Amino acid sequence: MAKKTDAEKVLSPDELSNEFKEYSVAEFFKRNRQMLGYTGKVRSLTTVVHEYVTNSLDASEDAKVLPELLVEVVSLPDGHYKVVSEDNGTGIPKQNVGQALGKLLAGTKFMQRQQKRGQQGIGAAYATLFSQITTGRETHVKTSSGDYKVFECDVSIDINKNESVLHNQREYSAKFRGTRIEVELSEVEYNRGSYGPFEYLRRTAIANPHAQITLVEPNKEITAFPRASNDMPAKPKKVLPHPLGVTTSDLMDMSGVSPSRKISSMLQNEFSRLSAEKVKEVSSLCPGVDLERAPRNLQWQEAEKLVQAFQKVRWIAPETDALQPIGSGQLVKSLKNLLAPEELRVVERPPKVFRGGIPFMVEAAIAYGGNAGAVDTDGKPAGKGEVMRFANRVPLLFDAGNCAIVEAVKTIDWSRYDLKEWESMPLTVFVNFTSVYVPYTGAGKLAIAAEEEIVAEIRNALMECARGIAMYLHTLRRAEEQEHRRSIFFKYLGEVAQALSEVTGREKAVLVEKLRKIAEERTSLLEAAEADAEEGLDRLEKAASKAMVEDKEEEAG
Amino acid sequence: MAKKTDAEKVLSPDELSNEFKEYSVAEFFKRNRQMLGYTGKVRSLTTVVHEYVTNSLDASEDAKVLPELLVEVVSLPDGHYKVVSEDNGTGIPKQNVGQALGKLLAGTKFMQRQQKRGQQGIGAAYATLFSQITTGRETHVKTSSGDYKVFECDVSIDINKNESVLHNQREYSAKFRGTRIEVELSEVEYNRGSYGPFEYLRRTAIANPHAQITLVEPNKEITAFPRASNDMPAKPKKVLPHPLGVTTSDLMDMSGVSPSRKISSMLQNEFSRLSAEKVKEVSSLCPGVDLERAPRNLQWQEAEKLVQAFQKVRWIAPETDALQPIGSGQLVKSLKNLLAPEELRVVERPPKVFRGGIPFMVEAAIAYGGNAGAVDTDGKPAGKGEVMRFANRVPLLFDAGNCAIVEAVKTIDWSRYDLKEWESMPLTVFVNFTSVYVPYTGAGKLAIAAEEEIVAEIRNALMECARGIAMYLHTLRRAEEQEHRRSIFFKYLGEVAQALSEVTGREKAVLVEKLRKIAEERTSLLEAAEADAEEGLDRLEKAASKAMVEDKEEEAG
Repeated sequence: MAKKTDAEKVLSPDELSNEFKEYSVAEFFKRNRQMLGYTGKVRSLTTVVHEYVTNSLDASEDAKVLPELLVEVVSLPDGHYKVVSEDNGTGIPKQNVGQALGKLLAGTKFMQRQQKRGQQGIGAAYATLFSQITTGRETHVKTSSGDYKVFECDVSIDINKNESVLHNQREYSAKFRGTRIEVELSEVEYNRGSYGPFEYLRRTAIANPHAQITLVEPNKEITAFPRASNDMPAKPKKVLPHPLGVTTSDLMDMSGVSPSRKISSMLQNEFSRLSAEKVKEVSSLCPGVDLERAPRNLQWQEAEKLVQAFQKVRWIAPETDALQPIGSGQLVKSLKNLLAPEELRVVERPPKVFRGGIPFMVEAAIAYGGNAGAVDTDGKPAGKGEVMRFANRVPLLFDAGNCAIVEAVKTIDWSRYDLKEWESMPLTVFVNFTSVYVPYTGAGKLAIAAEEEIVAEIRNALMECARGIAMYLHTLRRAEEQEHRRSIFFKYLGEVAQALSEVTGREKAVLVEKLRKIAEERTSLLEAAEADAEEGLDRLEKAASKAMVEDKEEEAG
Repeated sequence: MAKKTDAEKVLSPDELSNEFKEYSVAEFFKRNRQMLGYTGKVRSLTTVVHEYVTNSLDASEDAKVLPELLVEVVSLPDGHYKVVSEDNGTGIPKQNVGQALGKLLAGTKFMQRQQKRGQQGIGAAYATLFSQITTGRETHVKTSSGDYKVFECDVSIDINKNESVLHNQREYSAKFRGTRIEVELSEVEYNRGSYGPFEYLRRTAIANPHAQITLVEPNKEITAFPRASNDMPAKPKKVLPHPLGVTTSDLMDMSGVSPSRKISSMLQNEFSRLSAEKVKEVSSLCPGVDLERAPRNLQWQEAEKLVQAFQKVRWIAPETDALQPIGSGQLVKSLKNLLAPEELRVVERPPKVFRGGIPFMVEAAIAYGGNAGAVDTDGKPAGKGEVMRFANRVPLLFDAGNCAIVEAVKTIDWSRYDLKEWESMPLTVFVNFTSVYVPYTGAGKLAIAAEEEIVAEIRNALMECARGIAMYLHTLRRAEEQEHRRSIFFKYLGEVAQALSEVTGREKAVLVEKLRKIAEERTSLLEAAEADAEEGLDRLEKAASKAMVEDKEEEAG
């Protein structure tokens, strides 16, 4: 056939050379969308929502306003979906709209030592690309910093160059602050299941009690996840690295861009906990490494020696005020607000350190009853247990396998807390992992590496919550048992009264009434009674006898 | 503290604009190594070996020579490892060494419609980067096309620019063909476990019987995975896409670069199975789409209509001669060579199609006994079952969850084949999935999407193998049962001979000898005997009686 290409020839070096081509990162991710979470129709849609929502939350916090987010998913007649995302954040400067939405690997977040939600500099721009390769459409954006100057345009990506293309640019005066994005997608699907946008936003709301999030679903149903708290979270600080948290490669990178004149001053100025005394100590462990040279002259082997020396020195633990947890008070409000549980236990553990130099913090909660537990595809409680995983307040919906949180849940002996069957109970297990550096495992950044210190800390937090829930369940059970005992007592009340009537000669009806009164008055005795109902009954009978005796004495007196 | 940065201020639009930065793809992957399989120390090492070995196998096939691969892993005193990879392939043209090893997103393989092992244009270059960021070293390369001109140099990557930097370039005359790479790595670890380079190469050898692979381990032990066949696999052909295998985006891409003058001729010339008649049929389904215009004028909505029309037309199935399976004959040689199993069943299924337009092929095998089954960390058989997954002959060692192969294995009712306990049997389940387009799931490209047609086909192949193994096990068991019956026979032989001796008056010892001879001669009768040993004994007794009668007649005659 003429169509076939000739595959039988061995290429000459020159011909082989002609086969070499270079590709843009946009082209690469166009063909490797699964690396960015675009696998499966529901997940792809949730990923787009996730990218916009994390950016919106960061932008609102940057603007120091309480986030007000609107997400609207519209089903279009041709099987496409439109996603609208609107926030009240900083807005995107006009000259950066192309970078933010039309160029992969550009943005404000990459490489900062600061606890942020997004970190890739790729999310929102890839949503633009995904729209483009599934529907051929441009992404519409409207943005303003709130200075009455609003910028609108349509964005697409020149895939060969990974450069933005802006069309229909308009600038006008209006009252608006924030960013509104409209994107049209195909190869996506909406549902309310546990991997869909509804669940994603529900969890986002739980971890962000200061946010007001409104979702409009394709069927036009409007769900408001209401703000539970007006307390603005403090903005996480940028932190200097702790000596135990850097690799040789990090140190080489720092030395390449350091404004310090000497390696010694770079160490002292650009690290946390690295005092002049500590510089001397480190230096003494690295004979032959001259720290009085310029940082840019630092050699790899020298940097390796310095990092090895860092491991040998005793350090003050890293500063932890860069960590910005939800806070237990806020979390209680939030979980009550959204789950209205019968019982709730929340634990905020003090900061800990993993790998010697990286601070982290675990917040955990267990909610029982009410709307707690997994939801079915209609978003209604399904009477089943669920584990909600978060890293820096971002819900981790996918790739649960190998996650430190799931690992911790697995290794807890739930039977100790009467929660052996937790998976079939209306129970929500909540964990938020907070750190400037989240050790993600797997390519999708949706599971936290199950490192020993991290798993142990999550275990401890969850066991603390579980003890509280166990007490509640115990109290519930005791109340049930008491009710059981009481019913037994009333069952026997007639017979006891009859017997007493025969012994004392008093009227049975009066005795019944007296016994009932005693039973009601002396509930405390019932509560003291052990599980054995007969034993409780014994005591009650004794109490009844004693009361009878008192009664008699009273009469006699 | 003076070190703290001010995090309390809201940035002005201009200040915010200054925060925007752009990053190179090298910088991105430096910080997202997990996306490329660099998670965990053993896996990272295996990933480097995988990248070099897949390139080497492709290069040998491009050069039309039987691959001879050397992989050496050396443990260095400072905890680093050195990996040496050498092949006898095409070599890398001197002017492309930088692209091949020092620049991400450059290479010969990206975007080809051809069954190849690697497809990312990123693997070997990322190994260079990984070396650089963990040891600060350059990667050494020696390469030649076999024209007596050898080129050697050290390669690194300018991470900010994603451009290669070549040092110590030398060119000299020598007899050498192929490529030898030496790379130094840290944050890796060697072992013989099921995720290590040993197992990776063992599986590569099984799926590539035409390759000779030698591994030198850190303890200097040399393992040769010998070539099982001298048959060179045919080089896979580049194929034109089938109309059912393209998306709107694909069609738009094609129209942008098409050399055809009209859309109609592009359809006819650049698709498989799309004849002039079919163009008419497609056209009739797309009223209003003028196919006589130039391809570059095709609009998205028009392309969408064409792709929708493709779905409605009846097509001849796609050509399958682009598929290059291992071949059942080769696979038998290979599995016998490396596993020396007691029993082996190999099935090569005819090509099938998934998603209507993408051809694929499944080869499966089950090996029982011998060296089949999982190996322990010493590389010795562990007496346990294992599933070996391959896509286009490349072992898929990681991310087994959600893989179509694992899914197929799970859904088979193994008890039907007496293999219910296969996981604790010395059993190797082998599946190779062959396709120009492998529908990978997850970011790592190490699991095949469990699409219905694919899972069904793998199931069928494995059940066919399992039937063969079941027959063997049945035969084994029957032989055991026969042995059991025989032993019962010999147990009773004395008594039978005694009884016969009493009846016939002949000497017992003679009768014993005769009976034994009969038993040996008439094994076929034993084999015909049903499981019931007594029944078999009955028959033997009858046979013995008959023989006795014949004996008598003989005597009488």
